[in-house]
Amino acid sequence: MKNEKIILDTSIFVNPEAKYKFGRKPTTAFCNFLKLAEKTKDIEFYMPPSVFDELMNFVNKSKIPTKLLVLIHKKPPKKYELKTPAFFLYELVEDMRERINKGLRIAEKGARDSLGKKKVNDIIKKLRHNYRVALRAGTLDSKEDIDLILLAKELRASLVSIDNGVIKWAHKLGIRCIEAKDLKSILKKRRLSE
Amino acid sequence: MKNEKIILDTSIFVNPEAKYKFGRKPTTAFCNFLKLAEKTKDIEFYMPPSVFDELMNFVNKSKIPTKLLVLIHKKPPKKYELKTPAFFLYELVEDMRERINKGLRIAEKGARDSLGKKKVNDIIKKLRHNYRVALRAGTLDSKEDIDLILLAKELRASLVSIDNGVIKWAHKLGIRCIEAKDLKSILKKRRLSE
Repeated sequence: MKNEKIILDTSIFVNPEAKYKFGRKPTTAFCNFLKLAEKTKDIEFYMPPSVFDELMNFVNKSKIPTKLLVLIHKKPPKKYELKTPAFFLYELVEDMRERINKGLRIAEKGARDSLGKKKVNDIIKKLRHNYRVALRAGTLDSKEDIDLILLAKELRASLVSIDNGVIKWAHKLGIRCIEAKDLKSILKKRRLSE
Repeated sequence: MKNEKIILDTSIFVNPEAKYKFGRKPTTAFCNFLKLAEKTKDIEFYMPPSVFDELMNFVNKSKIPTKLLVLIHKKPPKKYELKTPAFFLYELVEDMRERINKGLRIAEKGARDSLGKKKVNDIIKKLRHNYRVALRAGTLDSKEDIDLILLAKELRASLVSIDNGVIKWAHKLGIRCIEAKDLKSILKKRRLSE
């Protein structure tokens, strides 16, 4: 039987909603995951190098034993060979079009809100928040996001992430997504007999 | 020898920069193009139905003889079969990411510009213009745009458009784009001997 392949997103170690499962701080969470992964059979763990680098910005690498770090296969997707179905492009462009329109309404509101005002800090803060949510939450907005779903597609792997955008667009390509909270149980079930 | 296939965008009949080649008003321009097309050999003309419908909003259909209208093959791309290379997706998302950041800076400027002001109309007008240019000019921002480039890819056809976004992204897929101003000469060179 072939090993199951699982792709890991940074979010599962970093995001406050998920990291409590393996530990409260990113370094602890990642280390605890690796210790469990070391004792797991029949599963290979992958991260695209871009996503691995992203994670390294959040953890104290010197605290992670090298023999554990190598448990993560760092492999990028074959971006010059892989193909995506055309409908995916349509859906992405339509989705972005709606977001862009929303962004303009938010921008207009910002301009109206500061009419006659003397200070703008709170207005800008709110504007930034609303704009970012409208334009970026729930969509594919970085090459790291695309690396994750394309690598999952290429390796026919499962994907663990708690980023709604990544999950939503991975599902469109038929990729199995594992909930971050289920990863621990999966690892425990596959534990090597000691 | 197989017929050459040419995909037509609405822009070549509608946009002020291009339409003078066939006529000043969209209906005249389109009619004059069709009259030339009728006498052209070895070329088939295509429009995705979405783009044809778009054009029909600009022209007076009752003034166009049916026998000329049928010269345009209305065919959508096979959106559930076609595939696009993954690098295309990367470039599109990276491009959009930069635009989104630009959009936020424009939105912030709008909010700052109206500080202490009493009227907002001019500010909003400028904001809208700058935002639309930043977010939508030069990119793929509609299903009509995608229909054009995917149909060209599917049929190995050439594409005539004066939309910079369509041309830029068509070029990435290796699609031959004909400049709108050259279309007339091409038609004349291929004129049926009378």
